[in-house]
Amino acid sequence: MAQDQLILALDYGGTKLMAATVGRGARQWLALERSVSPPQHDGDYERKTMHALAHKLLGGARPAAVGISFGGPVDAGGRLVFLSHHIPGWENIPYCDQVEAEFGAPAAMANDGNIGALGEYVFGVGAGCRSLLYITVSTGVGGGWVFDGKIFAGADGMAGEIGHTTVDPRGPLCVCGRHGCVEALACGPKFAEVAQARLRAEPGAGAKLRALAGGDIANVTGQLVAQAAAEGDALATEVLLEAARSLGIGIGTALNLINPERVVVGGGVSKSGPAWWAALRAAARATALPQARVEIVPASLGDDAPLWGAVALAQALLK
Amino acid sequence: MAQDQLILALDYGGTKLMAATVGRGARQWLALERSVSPPQHDGDYERKTMHALAHKLLGGARPAAVGISFGGPVDAGGRLVFLSHHIPGWENIPYCDQVEAEFGAPAAMANDGNIGALGEYVFGVGAGCRSLLYITVSTGVGGGWVFDGKIFAGADGMAGEIGHTTVDPRGPLCVCGRHGCVEALACGPKFAEVAQARLRAEPGAGAKLRALAGGDIANVTGQLVAQAAAEGDALATEVLLEAARSLGIGIGTALNLINPERVVVGGGVSKSGPAWWAALRAAARATALPQARVEIVPASLGDDAPLWGAVALAQALLK
Repeated sequence: MAQDQLILALDYGGTKLMAATVGRGARQWLALERSVSPPQHDGDYERKTMHALAHKLLGGARPAAVGISFGGPVDAGGRLVFLSHHIPGWENIPYCDQVEAEFGAPAAMANDGNIGALGEYVFGVGAGCRSLLYITVSTGVGGGWVFDGKIFAGADGMAGEIGHTTVDPRGPLCVCGRHGCVEALACGPKFAEVAQARLRAEPGAGAKLRALAGGDIANVTGQLVAQAAAEGDALATEVLLEAARSLGIGIGTALNLINPERVVVGGGVSKSGPAWWAALRAAARATALPQARVEIVPASLGDDAPLWGAVALAQALLK
Repeated sequence: MAQDQLILALDYGGTKLMAATVGRGARQWLALERSVSPPQHDGDYERKTMHALAHKLLGGARPAAVGISFGGPVDAGGRLVFLSHHIPGWENIPYCDQVEAEFGAPAAMANDGNIGALGEYVFGVGAGCRSLLYITVSTGVGGGWVFDGKIFAGADGMAGEIGHTTVDPRGPLCVCGRHGCVEALACGPKFAEVAQARLRAEPGAGAKLRALAGGDIANVTGQLVAQAAAEGDALATEVLLEAARSLGIGIGTALNLINPERVVVGGGVSKSGPAWWAALRAAARATALPQARVEIVPASLGDDAPLWGAVALAQALLK
């Protein structure tokens, strides 16, 4: 492949690094590498590991452009990482400059929520939409949105942060320090905590969930709650659907502010089954104004959405 | 003035009609007419009255373009009124077509929140901003937002409806049928109701507010609550600041989704004094993510914001 046709995509996921190459305009990876980070690491370790992965993929070739997904806040221009919420050593790093020097090619960056939105918009279920809100629900809740083919980053790169919109000001504490955010109510670890507390408080309830957890309440995860709910466990069903409703209320509020054509939901928790989707959609419909459409569909790119968004961002540099 | 330089602006406010003319590019009205509607009226009455006002202002001249502000939902293209929440006879009216036939000039329309945002953006405190969220708090809570000089109406014309974003799903019933919307917690009549309920429940409290209401709790309005708070009444202060905090939480959520450069707040309730503004700003700052700016300023155009937005919309037709 000619060097002016090679796109490099990098995804810093907090606990996981991914790098991939693709031909310009293509829809299949040429090559993809993953690396799971050790428990104690820092930004310097991540950058060195990622660059080694990338050079291995490139095999001496120079990419035409590089796109970068970063799992934390970056500036609106997509040049500077503000920080990582997970590991030290990412404070105010002008990472695009570093990548351009390392690979000899223009680079562009966005946070994982925004770039995941772009990935679904260009390569996934957002095709044909003018505006798209993207939400990923797993250990946290990320989000981003795209309008007229471009990431809508806002004045400070913070637009689309639906995970930290307030659903209930008296609700549980969120990792961000606020109370009752969508993330604090709807992400897997948080509703697993709710299920654990209820199992402790209600010794006769949740038999299936207890069995799935091998009798140890501490083993209960979001995934086990979803599985128990699918098998008809009443306690698990209540907890799961309350989490889905909280996300649905957050989506309804977003619909009244942004009114996008389509909402795309991905991440591990989005695999919780039809009852979760029905509760989510009903709450969003009940919260949104009647004139606003409510079209909520599953994401199609899975964990690769940020990487594909990075490809779209890199390709936009070449236009 | 040459006919190709005359702009006609119309504002349907629910209980009040306003029409004005202005020279293209000018910042002072040539003439302005108001009409307060009688209690029992309908869309047909409003349209006839408005057109009579406008013809009086025009004195036989033909405008170059017409801008229309409508106090209710209109389609994203700004051609069709869906309905009025206040009066019958506005259901699915292709009002832009009617205005173009009536005045022989191109017309453009938007709902009052969106067009008020455009008014402040072009003629008020939004000058120099790339993105602006506008909120008007009086008997209801309206809103709209502008990005890159244009109203961001969303897929169905519903974007910017901050009044109907959820602050507390267990909160009081809103006119829209949902619970705990910003409007249900922060608009004048709603916090007046809270004050009335507290005065009934706490016979020893709120002496100043009782006095301002002439001893009749039913006379308590949002304005009187603000006045009593300014005079140091503890009950009134608590009620007023709780309403301000609710609006601030709604603004903080909007900041995390839209991340605009500036937020502009107008309407009668925004004249509730420095303590109201301080509580509003503190709640917005506490709700927004730390990287998102929180710049909240008073509106500058008062009740004329929608009319000036109509001028901006009409002028954009002539470019």
